[in-house]
Amino acid sequence: MVSPIYDYQLTIDKIIEWAAYAYPDQEIVYAPPKAPKVRLTYSKLHERVRRMASVLSQFKIKQGDKENLGTRIGVMDWNTSRFLELYYAIPMTGAVMHTVNVRLSPEEMAYTINVAEDEIIFTNEDFLPLLSSLLPKLPTVKKVIVMSDKNEDIDVKLPNVEVYEYEKLSREGDPNYTPPELDENTIATLVFTSGTTGLPKGTYFRHRDIVLHSIVVNAGVWNAPPLNLTHKDVWLQIPPLFHAHGWGSPYSSLLLGMKSVYPGRYDWNHIIRIIKEEGVTYTAGVPTMLYLIINSPELANYDLRGFKFIVAGQAIPKGLYEEAKKKGILISQGMGMTETAPLMGGLTFKPKMENWPEEKKEEYILYRAGRPAPLVFVRVVDPDMKDVPKDGKTMGEIIVRAPWMTRGYYKDPKKTEETWRGGWLHTGDLAVWDEEGYIAYVDRVKDVIKSGGEWIPSTRLEDLISTHPGVAEVAVIAAKHEKWIERPVAIVTPKQEYKGKLTENDIIQHLNKFVNQGVIPKWWIPDKVIILEGELPKTSTGKTDKKVLRDKYSNILIQK
Amino acid sequence: MVSPIYDYQLTIDKIIEWAAYAYPDQEIVYAPPKAPKVRLTYSKLHERVRRMASVLSQFKIKQGDKENLGTRIGVMDWNTSRFLELYYAIPMTGAVMHTVNVRLSPEEMAYTINVAEDEIIFTNEDFLPLLSSLLPKLPTVKKVIVMSDKNEDIDVKLPNVEVYEYEKLSREGDPNYTPPELDENTIATLVFTSGTTGLPKGTYFRHRDIVLHSIVVNAGVWNAPPLNLTHKDVWLQIPPLFHAHGWGSPYSSLLLGMKSVYPGRYDWNHIIRIIKEEGVTYTAGVPTMLYLIINSPELANYDLRGFKFIVAGQAIPKGLYEEAKKKGILISQGMGMTETAPLMGGLTFKPKMENWPEEKKEEYILYRAGRPAPLVFVRVVDPDMKDVPKDGKTMGEIIVRAPWMTRGYYKDPKKTEETWRGGWLHTGDLAVWDEEGYIAYVDRVKDVIKSGGEWIPSTRLEDLISTHPGVAEVAVIAAKHEKWIERPVAIVTPKQEYKGKLTENDIIQHLNKFVNQGVIPKWWIPDKVIILEGELPKTSTGKTDKKVLRDKYSNILIQK
Repeated sequence: MVSPIYDYQLTIDKIIEWAAYAYPDQEIVYAPPKAPKVRLTYSKLHERVRRMASVLSQFKIKQGDKENLGTRIGVMDWNTSRFLELYYAIPMTGAVMHTVNVRLSPEEMAYTINVAEDEIIFTNEDFLPLLSSLLPKLPTVKKVIVMSDKNEDIDVKLPNVEVYEYEKLSREGDPNYTPPELDENTIATLVFTSGTTGLPKGTYFRHRDIVLHSIVVNAGVWNAPPLNLTHKDVWLQIPPLFHAHGWGSPYSSLLLGMKSVYPGRYDWNHIIRIIKEEGVTYTAGVPTMLYLIINSPELANYDLRGFKFIVAGQAIPKGLYEEAKKKGILISQGMGMTETAPLMGGLTFKPKMENWPEEKKEEYILYRAGRPAPLVFVRVVDPDMKDVPKDGKTMGEIIVRAPWMTRGYYKDPKKTEETWRGGWLHTGDLAVWDEEGYIAYVDRVKDVIKSGGEWIPSTRLEDLISTHPGVAEVAVIAAKHEKWIERPVAIVTPKQEYKGKLTENDIIQHLNKFVNQGVIPKWWIPDKVIILEGELPKTSTGKTDKKVLRDKYSNILIQK
Repeated sequence: MVSPIYDYQLTIDKIIEWAAYAYPDQEIVYAPPKAPKVRLTYSKLHERVRRMASVLSQFKIKQGDKENLGTRIGVMDWNTSRFLELYYAIPMTGAVMHTVNVRLSPEEMAYTINVAEDEIIFTNEDFLPLLSSLLPKLPTVKKVIVMSDKNEDIDVKLPNVEVYEYEKLSREGDPNYTPPELDENTIATLVFTSGTTGLPKGTYFRHRDIVLHSIVVNAGVWNAPPLNLTHKDVWLQIPPLFHAHGWGSPYSSLLLGMKSVYPGRYDWNHIIRIIKEEGVTYTAGVPTMLYLIINSPELANYDLRGFKFIVAGQAIPKGLYEEAKKKGILISQGMGMTETAPLMGGLTFKPKMENWPEEKKEEYILYRAGRPAPLVFVRVVDPDMKDVPKDGKTMGEIIVRAPWMTRGYYKDPKKTEETWRGGWLHTGDLAVWDEEGYIAYVDRVKDVIKSGGEWIPSTRLEDLISTHPGVAEVAVIAAKHEKWIERPVAIVTPKQEYKGKLTENDIIQHLNKFVNQGVIPKWWIPDKVIILEGELPKTSTGKTDKKVLRDKYSNILIQK
């Protein structure tokens, strides 16, 4: 007998349906730099989502299930409200949303679209020239839907694909479309990592992963101290929607009934302006963004007390933290990666820390990435997967188990097997943890130097070397060594005025000062410092390409 | 190929494992009235849970799965830390925890144990005489484990069952026991309703239901305004653990890392004392409990500002609310029932209500039960399951869909089918909802009087009649009527000093005053008022037994 009990599946359509039902008149504001603002209530957003989902269902997209991915649909867009609509409309139909990372190189972008086998591409008109040049290399793409802020019909022709316009399709869509009842294990999204080495890797998530992630973010992560986020806060979507689900906020903020602001393409002066115009209280980004907010003439007389900023991607410099504190801005940190949807934790305080002196709490905000979110297990382990001591000193690799991780690397079972060895996601991040279980990142595992069984973090040496006044760029890599197996080698580029003057000895002497002060041990000093006249090699996303440096210099100590 | 990805199941063991990992030194305090306090860290609690789970696994209990329930294990206890341990230890092994409602009559209790087919019973020594008298009627029970606060071996003999002592078993258990990896759809708990009519009905929940319920409670219900609960709060477990999962707190509070206090058997003076001793900031219960807190000499000089109280089971009288407000106590309301694990929502404010005048917010606290929790859909519908207007006046039945509802009524497919008709749980509660979607309970559907197609809520008439100074008790029931199909009949018992004096006419005249004031329409006045000299019949849980009254009086208008 079939049970009469409704088999509630944790699918993405439930999030928008619930939000529109519980907060029909709450607002989403789309405020692009060069077009009028669009204000959508949750109710209106839900209507527009259903319209676009109905359009997709008429396109006869293939519905996925536990085993097979549905039709893949790529999106190339800035942080617009249309992209937000697609966050719901695409997965709701059983198709898979592939958020194309528009910061990749054109070749990498084409690579991801071909791996995904996207059949439909939604694109902002800003990316039309790029897409147009790529299309001959994208055999699976059959339809392109152009999204524009212009309030007029646009005339676009592309070879060998059908071209549609988003707003026209939306008008023709069914505002009362009912999505199919999907199994919660249906794949919903496909998101590529922007790895520092090699080609981007595809991660993919079930509806269930995204719903669980969305609830837990609201259940003791950002709503715990120091941020104490509430639904009164107003969120500004700075994290790009084309990267790691925009940090999950397009989903989680709706479950809190929070007003959210989408700024369109990145124009920092404009973003600063809308913080004031829309009463934004809360955002996340790299420290530079915080610097811009604090030093904006636009916000000179604006009361930033209680403004909340989650530092993501890198630690906050102490000077910037002090400035933020003076303004009354609250800082926290996020812990995540594409593979974990992306959140695995954040910097929150435990109840007993409430009574800690302010300096001790600040030390955590400055020097810890955080601790695991509810139900997430994060460990710092040695190569045998045994926990390293919680002493804040012993380094190990971060491994993770969460209810919402990627189902693997898409079409890469070998890399999947290797990364999940022993049933835990190996993040490749080297870290220490302290007696309270808080994590501090140290380095990437592949970048650390394993010298005689001891680990030397490349990032720490890079930090110290970069304080020399003549250094423009620096990278420290592991070079092969007969006795110690690996030893550090530094590659340095001098600033303009130091060109032809900076020497290996200058750098060694600079580091010796830190040794004398007890900052680092003597044996961390690189065996060699190479002074390059040009620039360090870069990846497509602008990070130093250590792989190229390793290929070139890893044998330099043996050749000697 | 088997996927190397860890298949994270939402099972109850994850809650305690995570809590002990994230907050190892947070405290659970067991403070019984007549024995020394026991302080357990989360870490110690986890150890004791594993010890007891290992003991159960050695008892060769049967592990359940999606289709079949594991061994049922009954628990008869007050709110003790041992019961808390069993909330984790029993389901963790794959067995089913049956929380025996010790407020039922002995016959009903035996009925539930026999329906459950409990093979093991954990019992507080307080219930030994009762259990001993029931055992001859409990053929499935093979083992009894006695729980006592006495720090000495106890000597208990019961016929035909093996008898063990909890602390001795615990000492012998394995502190490092690893639970089996259960499917999250395994049934974890069996909880009987205390219905006002008929025998208790069994509801049963999967591991997944309980984990989802636990997260969502922390994701925008009690941690939203007006309570703004945080992990700094200290929870006092007043809701009985033998009823509706103790409102879910034994699970959800651990995910917040909250200090919790378990007061043992109900001794109100003692409970008041531990509020002060343990710095309790937060509890839930009937309004009487709040009255006791406010008027306790023990708390006369105790600062109750910021103390949080969730009114459960019935609305808070205005006078009591005003008193609470003067003391700075924050009030909210819970919306739930056994069938929904039990939470379906609570009284929380939307962001836009922050700027409402205080009186308007208070009106909500006084006269609304609340609105749905995230992902829960609550509707108020007419008999065709169409939403009634959100006008705060039109009555309808509450129907619910939540990710965590009972899988049906245990061994009662007919009742299950009937209650879940159309894919929604029909709660049997009559309510109105307002333009903001907030629910106000009106009556039980089976108690409302359907007069000529219009509904007259029995509870409203009972409230008004009870304000007559001569009335001790009152029940209003539906009596059959030739023309109107049903008409209200009131059954009243007079206070001592009014015995032999109170008349039908007194009551009718009293109600006519309300008609003249426009409080109720004229046609709501009962067709008959019966004055009884004795007491109204009661159910085992002390509620008025309207079924008995209906059996006796429902034909009284036709016989005339």
